[in-house]
Amino acid sequence: MNAANRYWSALTASLTPYVPGEQPKVDGLVKLNTNENPYPPSPRALAAIAEAAQKLALYPDPESTELRQAVAERHGLGVEHVFAGNGSDEVLGFAFLALLKHDLPLLFPDISYSFYPVYCGLFDIAFETIALRDDFALDLADYARPNGGIVFPNPNAPTGRALPLADIEALLQRNRDSVVLVDEAYVDFGAESAAPLVRKYPNLLVTQTLSKSRSLAGLRVGFAIGDPGLIEGLRRVKDSFNSYPVDRLAAAGAAAAMRDEAYFAQTRDAVVATREQLVADLAARGFTSLPSAANFIFTTHATQSAEALLAALRERKVLVRRFSAPRVANWLRITIGSPEQCAALLAALDDILG
Amino acid sequence: MNAANRYWSALTASLTPYVPGEQPKVDGLVKLNTNENPYPPSPRALAAIAEAAQKLALYPDPESTELRQAVAERHGLGVEHVFAGNGSDEVLGFAFLALLKHDLPLLFPDISYSFYPVYCGLFDIAFETIALRDDFALDLADYARPNGGIVFPNPNAPTGRALPLADIEALLQRNRDSVVLVDEAYVDFGAESAAPLVRKYPNLLVTQTLSKSRSLAGLRVGFAIGDPGLIEGLRRVKDSFNSYPVDRLAAAGAAAAMRDEAYFAQTRDAVVATREQLVADLAARGFTSLPSAANFIFTTHATQSAEALLAALRERKVLVRRFSAPRVANWLRITIGSPEQCAALLAALDDILG
Repeated sequence: MNAANRYWSALTASLTPYVPGEQPKVDGLVKLNTNENPYPPSPRALAAIAEAAQKLALYPDPESTELRQAVAERHGLGVEHVFAGNGSDEVLGFAFLALLKHDLPLLFPDISYSFYPVYCGLFDIAFETIALRDDFALDLADYARPNGGIVFPNPNAPTGRALPLADIEALLQRNRDSVVLVDEAYVDFGAESAAPLVRKYPNLLVTQTLSKSRSLAGLRVGFAIGDPGLIEGLRRVKDSFNSYPVDRLAAAGAAAAMRDEAYFAQTRDAVVATREQLVADLAARGFTSLPSAANFIFTTHATQSAEALLAALRERKVLVRRFSAPRVANWLRITIGSPEQCAALLAALDDILG
Repeated sequence: MNAANRYWSALTASLTPYVPGEQPKVDGLVKLNTNENPYPPSPRALAAIAEAAQKLALYPDPESTELRQAVAERHGLGVEHVFAGNGSDEVLGFAFLALLKHDLPLLFPDISYSFYPVYCGLFDIAFETIALRDDFALDLADYARPNGGIVFPNPNAPTGRALPLADIEALLQRNRDSVVLVDEAYVDFGAESAAPLVRKYPNLLVTQTLSKSRSLAGLRVGFAIGDPGLIEGLRRVKDSFNSYPVDRLAAAGAAAAMRDEAYFAQTRDAVVATREQLVADLAARGFTSLPSAANFIFTTHATQSAEALLAALRERKVLVRRFSAPRVANWLRITIGSPEQCAALLAALDDILG
């Protein structure tokens, strides 16, 4: 705090900002705390970035048309169904303000992406949280109540549990008067995307990111898929805030990554295979993990506290993440790294557990 | 419009978004409409981008520390005096919400950057415009009235007229209860930055961009300089919207560009020399131009309407910009291009004017 906070708006003083996972500035850590992909991005993305660097003196296309075209093609949709932004966090922010701010409360799970209540604070959006079941299952039947919108991740974070597409369609059939936002940051690692449903349900918005399954967390590109009317709402907010949120390098690299389906499938399959092995290796050490459809697992140990384990791993240069909400405070979220990173994690755990 | 607009928030329907200058998707145009730099960015920026592309699977530093350090060093300040964002449009957006939203109205010139009233619409900020003098001079004496903040560009856009630093300091001396935001997008081409005053005035915020004088419009990087308390206010809003607005490539390229002072000075001097020549060449063809401290000129012709000239230039593949506000509707804003681009402009004008 500083005397200059007397110049802040009342809103600014009231905010409780999001706290991202640690991004250490030192090398040599085994970084399994922010769900980055252990494999580098597609070589085609890097080539596209190098080419786009030749025109950096000129503004980018404010509509990110080429990138949106690449996303649309992959999902069998038109460019008018796609909105692109500076990471899916920005896209979610625009969606909260453009589509989820109404008189009735927005609904989302009590255990979920912890940025959702932060957006509500920033944009003064009324919300109610719906408790996950005791086994951390998300039951969409619990969302049958008056609402100004519904948002949930599929798979959910930090639990990793996925919902069947039929459950999402059933929700859409009974919830027609407000937007349903399915946040698919992790969908490529084992869940089914709701994107094909956007032609049928004009109130469905799906968000995805290039940060996880396309290995481009450092590039900050995310997108939304939905009815053109929803996309137009996002565009109106974007053009009232920042006309060019996706820079030339990000647009070019992301478009090329979206088009390299073979590389995508290869690295995704590697992460999934490593995940299944890691779940087994942790089980042999006394951990119980939720079934994961994501590039992380949510796990708890039979006798050791998560807080103590996190600290002991940190001492051994292995970063994982824990959330402080009471229901999950004894769980750890561990990103699926490379086989070598997972081996380092297991070696550290063997050292800790004796 | 589409039936899905029934899902928009009331705010979304009420917005009047900003309209950026045309970014044509065809080549072969002489593009003098969006104040891009005719010279490429520093080779050091391109080298830094190529190196940073090796780590794109990892999130960037959410605090953009290296970039902020480069900005701080150039201005003789500490990293705690600097905030970095995804273009100065985003930085301005954060500043409007964090620092300029109060009960009293925000003040800005009637002829100025047309994004200011758009931010006010997005964030529900009361504002009053203050008319420029008849010669388009900005007189800060006109801002001595109760206010929740004051914002103006120096040099102003689209007029290009600069204010002496002494006038800005005099304003700061009598306006201590609200933030004064000096938007220095074009300052490097001939005006004096207010950045050195931030140690003395805790209510001064200065914004700059890499888009113009650093030839990086395609990279989307801008920054704010101010008292650490103001910077903390910006950070609180940023971390409630998007934790990582500056991607790895943008942060690395921008930091390297800020540190290449020799290249910066060389390209800036070239633009300034071309500007002075262009003003003379236009005067010889019946144009009157305002004195410009920017990388554009604001000019009007003795007999030809600006609207007709814009259309005739467009037919000859030369893009310039006109604004529709009545006071300036007969003026053109022309970006300073390369000598070759300016020659093409003059040849087109000779053809039009006969």
